Amino acid sequence: MLIEPQVLKGFRDFLPLKASRRLRLKRILEDTFESFGFMPIDTPVLEYKKVLLGKGGGETDKQIYEFKDKGKRDVAMRFDLTVPFARFMAAHLNELYLPFKRYHIDKVWRGENTQKGRYREFVQCDFDIVGTDNSSADFEILLLMYRSLSNLGVQGITIHLAHRGIFNRFLEKIGAAKESVEIMRNVDKLGKIGEVKVKSFLNEIITHDQTEQVLDYIKPEMTFLETLKKITMLSGGTSPESERLKEIYSFITYLDLQDTFLLDPSITRGLDYYTGIVFETFLDDLPSIGSVCSGGRYNNLASLYTKQQLPGVGSSIGLDRLMAGLEEIGLFAEDNSGTDIVILCMDEKDENEYHLLAERFRKERFSCELYFSKKKLSAQFAYAERKRIPIAVFYGTDEIRAGKLTIKNLKNRENISMISFEEAVKTCRNIIEG
Amino acid sequence: MLIEPQVLKGFRDFLPLKASRRLRLKRILEDTFESFGFMPIDTPVLEYKKVLLGKGGGETDKQIYEFKDKGKRDVAMRFDLTVPFARFMAAHLNELYLPFKRYHIDKVWRGENTQKGRYREFVQCDFDIVGTDNSSADFEILLLMYRSLSNLGVQGITIHLAHRGIFNRFLEKIGAAKESVEIMRNVDKLGKIGEVKVKSFLNEIITHDQTEQVLDYIKPEMTFLETLKKITMLSGGTSPESERLKEIYSFITYLDLQDTFLLDPSITRGLDYYTGIVFETFLDDLPSIGSVCSGGRYNNLASLYTKQQLPGVGSSIGLDRLMAGLEEIGLFAEDNSGTDIVILCMDEKDENEYHLLAERFRKERFSCELYFSKKKLSAQFAYAERKRIPIAVFYGTDEIRAGKLTIKNLKNRENISMISFEEAVKTCRNIIEG
Repeated sequence: MLIEPQVLKGFRDFLPLKASRRLRLKRILEDTFESFGFMPIDTPVLEYKKVLLGKGGGETDKQIYEFKDKGKRDVAMRFDLTVPFARFMAAHLNELYLPFKRYHIDKVWRGENTQKGRYREFVQCDFDIVGTDNSSADFEILLLMYRSLSNLGVQGITIHLAHRGIFNRFLEKIGAAKESVEIMRNVDKLGKIGEVKVKSFLNEIITHDQTEQVLDYIKPEMTFLETLKKITMLSGGTSPESERLKEIYSFITYLDLQDTFLLDPSITRGLDYYTGIVFETFLDDLPSIGSVCSGGRYNNLASLYTKQQLPGVGSSIGLDRLMAGLEEIGLFAEDNSGTDIVILCMDEKDENEYHLLAERFRKERFSCELYFSKKKLSAQFAYAERKRIPIAVFYGTDEIRAGKLTIKNLKNRENISMISFEEAVKTCRNIIEG
Repeated sequence: MLIEPQVLKGFRDFLPLKASRRLRLKRILEDTFESFGFMPIDTPVLEYKKVLLGKGGGETDKQIYEFKDKGKRDVAMRFDLTVPFARFMAAHLNELYLPFKRYHIDKVWRGENTQKGRYREFVQCDFDIVGTDNSSADFEILLLMYRSLSNLGVQGITIHLAHRGIFNRFLEKIGAAKESVEIMRNVDKLGKIGEVKVKSFLNEIITHDQTEQVLDYIKPEMTFLETLKKITMLSGGTSPESERLKEIYSFITYLDLQDTFLLDPSITRGLDYYTGIVFETFLDDLPSIGSVCSGGRYNNLASLYTKQQLPGVGSSIGLDRLMAGLEEIGLFAEDNSGTDIVILCMDEKDENEYHLLAERFRKERFSCELYFSKKKLSAQFAYAERKRIPIAVFYGTDEIRAGKLTIKNLKNRENISMISFEEAVKTCRNIIEG
């Protein structure tokens, strides 16, 4: 009786092309983070349930993968990378320096409703600066978001920015401070459910007049500075929070990035956790997939685990969602398998020559593989084609005797016969680059 | 009430230096595998329990992390990368080409006894060629093991090689075929428990005379060929299996790797799964940590899930164990944080200049970070030292006005004052390389 080789609902295998793409994206992100002095950390996939859930009680609890391990401990698989990071900071404060800049790219698990096209296992990518409350650090996270996406080859992004502190001042001013959490959660849905629905939800929480004021507040003006002027006024005049946005805007203009940033007071990021700036990032070519990178400033990362106050600012890229978006835009149309050269099997008795030749190509930084066992050339070419290998090498008895080789450009089926290894290296470089 | 920020027994946090090391090792391995035309795949961490355990009943079952998910499915976390790979091959046969060369580097979980210094979460690194039974493929896996370790900077490894088929012929010849699984499992322990204990275990299974013959069989002679001659004779003369070893040896000598390989008939790799060559790899400088890379040839990878016969050959590196070994040898003594340059904070009003300068250094491929907020220089230097950053940049009002900068070499505390950006780039390269 065979076992059906199926995976769980909401879980996925990644075939080579896709796995390779994701690895490539990961590397670009790692390199970008490291160019800014961010360091990787790693934490366990499994943790004590009480550590991950804290006070608990939210939506997340229902979605968590939890169980009793064989030592009867209540354990859970991490559902994000923020909670483990907070726990990590509290556990290792004495071993770390502040400000601490870390990134973490890895899988998380949530038992989401898969009917919405959501996955239960997906890759998150978080980066944070902890231990400083400074506008320059706020800007660095924004800059790093921009650099990450542009290094990935993404053209046309807009980062929507707001400040929860100013929103709170405004709500206090219009007498809606008590309802602020609920108001922000509703405003946060604006992009998904539209103004009409947000309005009707708000009307259930606050007066009609207050609702109108909120709807006015969250509308951006034509420019960053005009919007800033408006929300400053609506929130009772200049404040440390409005000054913070002004400083950030001065960094933005100094680095000539004003086209990328939009001051958008409707951004609130639902979570209570954030206390300062908040932001979301949209692809101009694909707004429908929603924000691909978002985050904000918080004033106390690890309050569940330590008395030490740890202010910080951070952001998170939904790598799987971003990758799906980039696939839709067509960013990967051109990619191949990663193998440059296949050495065809002309005669099994020459396989040791093939290994030696492959090693020579590898020393020249080509990715080079052997086709094993002598099959018809048509079968060998079919293999190369399925794997999208651009170059085949004939290294038959004649070639070996003459110390030469024959190259076949599989893109145009052209043969370049009986050339030296050095010529072959040049030819292969041209084929790959051209 | 604070929650204690502790991790589960047998699980670990990785602080930046160590996480960064592991990432670096991973990348070297990925690059090496890809240079041989191997492609990455990914499979879920959670799978149906019946898929992972198959017929089950072994030692592994007791160690597995398993539970019922919220949809009442029996699920388990993967305990290796081989079983998911077998399931993957069966599930995707129609989408793949054969021979299929894949690698997979990721975490696996086993509820091991932590008193033996073992971890319950660790990283495995598997690579296989599936769909061919060919000596050239056998050799390629061996060559790839060698290249992987030498690209990691490991000097002095010995790959111990044997062939289970020859051992089986020999056991049949001495009338111990029925006991072969048990005999091999005991011989497999030779390195750990020594000859005396193996002998006494064998004596419980087979006659004293047979035990003596087995102990003679498993002793290597002075050279590969002498050992091959002996085991060929003891197993009844030339066979396809002895020919296979001969072919592999011819590849080994053709690529001038004979110093790295030892024909060692005591290698059996306990598992029934293997049917052809088997191998283990030891570090000459640290034999005590045991094999860091091992595997073998199997004749049917995915028999639990599909009727299609899938012969293959593969190997697995215990990345965490290898890393611990390399740390012990001192291979990482010199590594730093990855950040090349820190721009000191002389005056917060100039922070926009610092961002601009940092971006210029990043364009020149330096990793460059800002120190946020104006603290005493001694505090800023202490930060750089803890993070092992080799270069500090002073970019004060004088420097900015003059369009110059001042570099401090933190290795020798030397200042290079008021130089141009281009000179600074050269100076920084020299400091990092020297």
